[in-house]
Amino acid sequence: MLALAVALPAFAADAPRARTLQQILDASPAGDWRPLDADNALLMEMPGGQVVIELAPRFAPAHVANIKTLVRAHYFDGLAITRVQDNFVTQWGDPHAGEAAARSLGDAAASLAPEFTRASRGLPFTALPDGDLYAPQSGFADSFPAARDSRRGAAWLTHCYGMVGAGRDNDPRSGPGNELYVVIGQAPRQLDRNIALVGRVVQGMALLSALPRGSGALGFYTEAEPKPPITRMRVVADLPPADRPALELLRSDTPTFAALVESRRKRRDDWYVAPAGRIDVCNVPLPVRERPASEAR
Amino acid sequence: MLALAVALPAFAADAPRARTLQQILDASPAGDWRPLDADNALLMEMPGGQVVIELAPRFAPAHVANIKTLVRAHYFDGLAITRVQDNFVTQWGDPHAGEAAARSLGDAAASLAPEFTRASRGLPFTALPDGDLYAPQSGFADSFPAARDSRRGAAWLTHCYGMVGAGRDNDPRSGPGNELYVVIGQAPRQLDRNIALVGRVVQGMALLSALPRGSGALGFYTEAEPKPPITRMRVVADLPPADRPALELLRSDTPTFAALVESRRKRRDDWYVAPAGRIDVCNVPLPVRERPASEAR
Repeated sequence: MLALAVALPAFAADAPRARTLQQILDASPAGDWRPLDADNALLMEMPGGQVVIELAPRFAPAHVANIKTLVRAHYFDGLAITRVQDNFVTQWGDPHAGEAAARSLGDAAASLAPEFTRASRGLPFTALPDGDLYAPQSGFADSFPAARDSRRGAAWLTHCYGMVGAGRDNDPRSGPGNELYVVIGQAPRQLDRNIALVGRVVQGMALLSALPRGSGALGFYTEAEPKPPITRMRVVADLPPADRPALELLRSDTPTFAALVESRRKRRDDWYVAPAGRIDVCNVPLPVRERPASEAR
Repeated sequence: MLALAVALPAFAADAPRARTLQQILDASPAGDWRPLDADNALLMEMPGGQVVIELAPRFAPAHVANIKTLVRAHYFDGLAITRVQDNFVTQWGDPHAGEAAARSLGDAAASLAPEFTRASRGLPFTALPDGDLYAPQSGFADSFPAARDSRRGAAWLTHCYGMVGAGRDNDPRSGPGNELYVVIGQAPRQLDRNIALVGRVVQGMALLSALPRGSGALGFYTEAEPKPPITRMRVVADLPPADRPALELLRSDTPTFAALVESRRKRRDDWYVAPAGRIDVCNVPLPVRERPASEAR
């Protein structure tokens, strides 16, 4: 069976020893990983399984707090996926938002000041070396893909596959986090600095990317199309310890991550005949693993 | 309901009149469109609907010819989707390839010289203005996303969402077109110049992008997972005229396409507060429409 991008290491004696991504991860010290931030992670249960989202309080603190307020009031429980636009986004929230039957936001804010960028100062940032079409610089902060413009003093999360944002209407204050979307196609980088990204999916992405596309305008489901239900959403820290996803994320400020980036910039496995020698921020894998059993929960 | 990226034109009197993509297309002269190239287009029928692929004989003439030979021998009829890897590719072909039960390739070649690049000379090319992370220049040729390196005299198709290629093993000659893949996630531009792209999906993409992901290594379906069947594949020109998809593609060397690119580089609809002013080759929409009823088939 032909396997695109198969990596079977078989080194020539005089070639630099190339390690596969898995070999790099297998050799990583425990300290290059960090646990999922349970206080800023969401578990979204759907009939087909669960999605884990890590929030980004360094980039969108007010949105993250408001989303947690909504989640803790069980706002999302029983709501649904409302939109799946091919090569763009899957979006969820209240199918009756804006109508009389809309669910109350309770104690959460209905409007929030934009958090489309933040100050670049004080933000630990691991830059990529190859430039970026949409920003002066791109790289990673807290294992999130990000960009910055040091001259203007701004940094922001980038719209890569799996990134989660707070949908809004034309009013930049109109996205308080009660409608969320996740990128399921080519990075729509034109949205950067125009809307608040609030986190990223770290597990269960296929539950959101493989959904039937909506046939309405902008991929919204029509009345005739069943909307995939959201059983419930919870803040991970609020779950009994045994129910919390035991995930670890590779830290983006570590030698292991640097080795990963290099191995992806210059692919040396036998399959490649012309390694790119470059990489886009949205093409860098951001490894997540189950916490090794040897470690205490 | 919050609609991400809604475009409701409402122009200030002194602002430059911004046209939406739809307005640009609605105003386009008929000559800025071309019919689907029926001699180099494939119709793939699946239980859920049909996928139309336009092939790129200017870039991969031997692969295109070999694929047409396979299609005309009904090689693909009754085969199946074998792999769906999230944020990467959907692949189809013979589930028994490489085994004793493998289907014969008949008169088609089992091995082909690589067509990973072609000469840039003689290739009409509409360049984009903002640069490209993976190539000296990117743009469009025959309504396909492409790149070129004029100094080295090479051009190639780029791995954008919806692009179709011929899967291969480590041997660069091992991808004769009997296993095909389509990009369903972030553009894997590291594959450019490493494998033969042969065309792109111009209709029915969601039939390939919304499939269940495979749980095996690299997204291959395991024995326990049903493989979505391919009912049949046909060369569009071989179909009775009434059965041919009546599609038109916006030509990429026209004023309408140039206006489209500009409207996407500098989004002026009310939703955007910070237009990017730049665009990546894989973020440019490539419009396809049903042929207007007024035109003869």
